[in-house]
Parts: sequence; structure tokens; C-alpha cells
Amino acid sequence: YHIVVLPGDGIGPEVTREAVRVLEAAAEAFGFRLTTETHPVGGAAIDATGDPLPEPVLQACLQADAVLLGAVGGPKWDNLDRAQRPEAGLLRLRKALEAYANLRPVQVPEALADASPLKREVVAGTDLLIVRELTGGIYFGEPRGRNGQMAWNTMRYTREEVARIARVAFEWAKRRRGRVASVDKANVLEVSQLWREVVSQVHREEFPELELEHFYVDNAAMQLVRDPRRFDVVVTGNLFGDILSDLAATLPGSLGMLPSASIGGRVGLFEPVHGSAPDIAGQGKANPLAAILSAAMLLETLGQEAAARAVRQGVDAALAEGVKTADLCRAGETPASTEAVGQFIA
Amino acid sequence: YHIVVLPGDGIGPEVTREAVRVLEAAAEAFGFRLTTETHPVGGAAIDATGDPLPEPVLQACLQADAVLLGAVGGPKWDNLDRAQRPEAGLLRLRKALEAYANLRPVQVPEALADASPLKREVVAGTDLLIVRELTGGIYFGEPRGRNGQMAWNTMRYTREEVARIARVAFEWAKRRRGRVASVDKANVLEVSQLWREVVSQVHREEFPELELEHFYVDNAAMQLVRDPRRFDVVVTGNLFGDILSDLAATLPGSLGMLPSASIGGRVGLFEPVHGSAPDIAGQGKANPLAAILSAAMLLETLGQEAAARAVRQGVDAALAEGVKTADLCRAGETPASTEAVGQFIA
Ligand SMILES: CC(C)[C@H](C(=O)O)[C@@H](O)C(=O)O
Ligand SMILES: CC(C)[C@H](C(=O)O)[C@@H](O)C(=O)O
Repeated sequence: YHIVVLPGDGIGPEVTREAVRVLEAAAEAFGFRLTTETHPVGGAAIDATGDPLPEPVLQACLQADAVLLGAVGGPKWDNLDRAQRPEAGLLRLRKALEAYANLRPVQVPEALADASPLKREVVAGTDLLIVRELTGGIYFGEPRGRNGQMAWNTMRYTREEVARIARVAFEWAKRRRGRVASVDKANVLEVSQLWREVVSQVHREEFPELELEHFYVDNAAMQLVRDPRRFDVVVTGNLFGDILSDLAATLPGSLGMLPSASIGGRVGLFEPVHGSAPDIAGQGKANPLAAILSAAMLLETLGQEAAARAVRQGVDAALAEGVKTADLCRAGETPASTEAVGQFIA
Repeated sequence: YHIVVLPGDGIGPEVTREAVRVLEAAAEAFGFRLTTETHPVGGAAIDATGDPLPEPVLQACLQADAVLLGAVGGPKWDNLDRAQRPEAGLLRLRKALEAYANLRPVQVPEALADASPLKREVVAGTDLLIVRELTGGIYFGEPRGRNGQMAWNTMRYTREEVARIARVAFEWAKRRRGRVASVDKANVLEVSQLWREVVSQVHREEFPELELEHFYVDNAAMQLVRDPRRFDVVVTGNLFGDILSDLAATLPGSLGMLPSASIGGRVGLFEPVHGSAPDIAGQGKANPLAAILSAAMLLETLGQEAAARAVRQGVDAALAEGVKTADLCRAGETPASTEAVGQFIA
């Protein structure tokens, strides 16, 4: 397998380094060949070339078997125009890879429930998967723009875009607990009415044995806090998914463990949910588990399920033996460095 | 003062009845004259006239000193087209009243922190005010619509719309702890870049002594759960405000106590944050406190501050003496009826 690694900005390089270390160990242990090539993206690419996604980097990604990304962005580039910012590079990459299905699993095992901002009796045992549409909606809709007086964006979905993301959600629900919650704002928006109709139709025609519930986005935000265990698979559009997946990411108490996979096109994109965290970059403190668990999703997507399982067991072992970074330590525990965690798991 | 009362659907009639009882008691105690007139809206108006906001009802509202609303909507009307639904009546009413500033205060006093889904040490002492833009953004933006293949909505703001809601937020912050958090998605949307610029400009030119922080909406959702006490006034657009205010509404554990005021036009609109709760309608179980506290905001807006304070003291007294509906009772406590709570406070 040929993997393109895009470390990006802030703590991105530190955490992807450990994820690559683990991938290489997995290849050796499970007997498959793995090559990597590394490129700048986001702020790092702006500094090097003026473009957050230089054409040769995009071409390399399109030819890879998978892309592993760290994080992009930081205060240094915050005053640039939208189209020149690190984030614009990430959005163009998602679109070019046609990675329309962003999967963000969130679990709160009993053992970690005390670290959650929610009460243990509300949150312990949460196990949900957010399926966010990633290449459509208001992120990409035209017309968009501004003049001296006003600004505008367009939230648009086609039937086909909704149907294909719905199918991804139902397929995952089948392998899980069989329940899909679809989130929209159909009491106000036409685009949400279409969303609701198409999701219902895919359910009826292709997955009638599964359970489907519809939520308005305001109510979904509420229920994620009041009773997160009621959810199995949550499917929603790009903007609502951005908000709800970050909301769900607070449930385990630390962002440092949440991976994501963006799939559906020819090449999958795997990245931790956390951002570039410029405040702790370069200090060897960053938690590499989200990047390492993203690498496990990458292995799974390539069909290397046993290797993916082994990586996850490595993560569990590190936690059980207390080899963990400061964000996961309680008072009195000694934090391990980013590199020490990666080496342990590898 | 002439108040138009729109009980609406579900538990709306029960809770507004108690709010009116309290308003009348306040008028008598504080020596001002108050007359009311009641009209159907939402599903009740659809059943009576086919229109969720009949023209005579709208005219009555436009001539009132304030409008007190219960709640609209319910499964009975859920299969109607968007423009014929109860919600469409509410949206038209907000727009016609030019009630562009929706104020939703959320408090979690120490005494109620155990009822919150959040851990006591995270949530106790929360005291924030969400200021949501209510008559613009994607709720009203054109073009909007659908055809056989796709559907679209437009998120649009003008400089003037942003500036006036920003001023409301800063004015409230001045009377509170002096801090405004503005929420947008400026790393992706042009309309949010305009939002951020205009809020910053109003801050710089008119309220430089106050503190302003900008949040992306995904991060704001996260921080509301991780550290709600960091917020004082939160200002945002219509759609983000819908999501974040419902999210914030989970913090106290019961929706039954959260009031709202929509102001800025000639006539203010006051309504509880909770919905029509058709499952418990007509049983005398509904919590009238949110409606009664909305009536207190109504009195405050009319300049009857002492009466508003007295109503709030009545609410505190009811809670202290255990005169409360089932949603607020712990095991072993005897619930009071909707009417009993209203009578006690009156
Ligand atoms: C960085 C930003 C453009 C991005 C998004 O909004 O999609 C991020 O918040 C995410 O969720 O991956
Ligand atoms: C009923 C609905 C149209 C409304 C809205 O989205 O504004 C409600 O959710 C609210 O927040 O008042």
C-alpha cells in the first residue's frame, strides 16, 4: 500500500509521526508492504508555496491508496482570505478525493466516564457513529459571495448526494445496532425536506429491516447531551455534521482519542478530529491516540482488519498500563511523551 | 397595556393560562391596567381557518403592546407542506413583528445543578444569555425552493442586520459581566466572514470597553458543554442560534423553566423555549414556569421592572416551598398541577 502522509500544522507533524510508526510496525507484523511519502498541506504549504494544497500534493493524494492527515490551521494564517487559508486546502482535498462520507465514532467506555463533562449515569456506555456528508451542502454550494452590503451562501443537496450518504449510514447501522437517526431542519428548510424524503425512501426501499428516526437539528443537539446512549448511527449534512460531531466529541472528556475516516471516493482520508493545537505544538505533549486510531480506520478500509484490531489492542494496552499523555492523566500520574506512547503501541 | 395572547397548540393553552393569571395579579398589585385578547395560532388556527397565522390575528398582534405565545406544532400537522405548517405561522409572526432579537437566558443555580446532565463541578453557576438573530439568515433567505432533482436555501445577512443584533448583544453585556462571544463559521462561509467583520466593527467603534471573543460554531457547541461558565452573552445568527440555544437549554436539566423574549420591532413576542409537548397536553402536568418567566420578561420590556421582579420572586418562592410540577420533582416529592403552580405565584 502506498500512503500519502500530510502532517500539516501545529501538533499535526508530531502525531502523524507516531501514527506512521504504528502503521509500519503493523505492516511488519502482519506481512504486508507499506510505503509512505510526506507532503506539506495547510499553513505549512502556504509558507512553502503560497497555496494550502499545491497541485503536486493533490496529484500524489489522488494516486495513493490512502491519505493520512494531521491537522491544519493556526493563528499565523487566520487573517488570510477564506480562499487562501489552510482550511481551504483541506476542503479542496476532501472534494477532490470525493470523500463524501465522514465517519466519526464516539465511545465513552465505563472506565473513562469520570473524565466526561456529563454525569456518569448519563454518558457511560455511549457508543455512536456520526456519518457526516462532507463534499456538499453549504460548504460548497453556489452562489456564494459578498459585496459591500451583504454576503450569501447556498445550502444545496441533490437527491443523489443524500441517497449515497444515507446508504453509508444504513450499511454501518447493519453492522452495529441497526438504528439510524437522521438529522435535518425540515420544519424550516426546503433542502431538509428533500433530505428527509430521500433518507426515508432509501430506508423503505433498501433497508426496511433497520430502524430510522428523524430529528430536527436543535433537538438532536439537545438529545446528544441529555441522553447520548439513545443514538447508534447519526447521519446528517455537512454543516449540521460539523456542529454535532464536535458536540459529540466532548462526551469522552478528551478530544485526544477521536479518529475520523472520510471515504466514498477512490481514496480515503484519515485524520484525528482534534485540531492543530498550536499552543502545545512542538513540546512532545500532544496525544497521538486520535491519529493512531485514524490509522487503524485506514487499515480497516484497506482490508487489513486483523492489523486494525491489533492497533486498537495496542491503544487499550497503553491506556491500561498508564502509558498516556498529560491530557489523559489524573493528579499524581506521570505523563508519557507523544513519542513514548507511539513507541509503546508500535 | 393591551396584550395579545396566542395559546397555540399542545400544552400552550395550559401554560399561557397561568402566565395570564400571574400578569393580572401583577397588574392589580402594582397598579397598572392590563387587558388581554386571545387568538388561535399554529395548528389551532389551521384547524379553525386553514391558515397558521390568520390575517386578523396578525393585525391584532401588530396593534398590541406585547404578544404572549404558548407553543405551536404537533404530530397532527406534521405531514403538511412547509408553508402550511404551524411553524410557518410562527416564522411569519416573528418577521411581521420585526422581532429580530431573540433573548434566551439560561441559568443553573447551585441548587439545581444536580438535575443537569452535566457534572455539578462543570455546570453549577452557569449564567448566560443567548442573543439569537431571529428574522434573517437561512430561515428567510431567497432564493429557496426545490425541483425534482435538488433543493436549496440561502443563508444571507446584510451589514445592517448584523450590526443591529450586535448592538443588542453589547447593550446586554454592559448590564451583565461585560463579555460577548460571537459565533460564526468564518473559516468556511462568506456570510460568516461578514458577520465577524461587522461585529468587530461595532465593538471597536461603539463598545470598546467590553470584551469580544469570536468562536466557530463547532467549537462553541463544544465549549457550551465543556465549560459553560466561560460564557456571558453569546450572539449568533438564526440557524446557529436555534441549535446553540436548545443546546444551552439542556444545561439546567429541565426545559420547563426557560423563557424567551423576541424584541427589536414595535411589538415584543414572549414565549417559553419548550415546545407544545403533545404527549402531556391537557393533563394539568405541564410546567408553567417558562411561560410565567416569559411574562416576567414581558413586564420588564414594558418598563414594569418591579412587577417583573415580584413575579420572579414568586417563582423562587414556589420552588423553595416545593410547589412544582412533576418534571422538577425528585422521588418522594408530590407534584403540583399546572394550575396550582400558577395560583401560588399569582
Ligand atoms: C477546519 C474546518 C474547515 C473543518 C470543517 O468545518 O469541516 C473542521 O471543523 C472539521 O470538522 O473537520
Ligand atoms: C418551531 C421552529 C420553527 C423554531 C425555530 O427553529 O426557530 C423553534 O425551534 C425555536 O427555536 O423557536
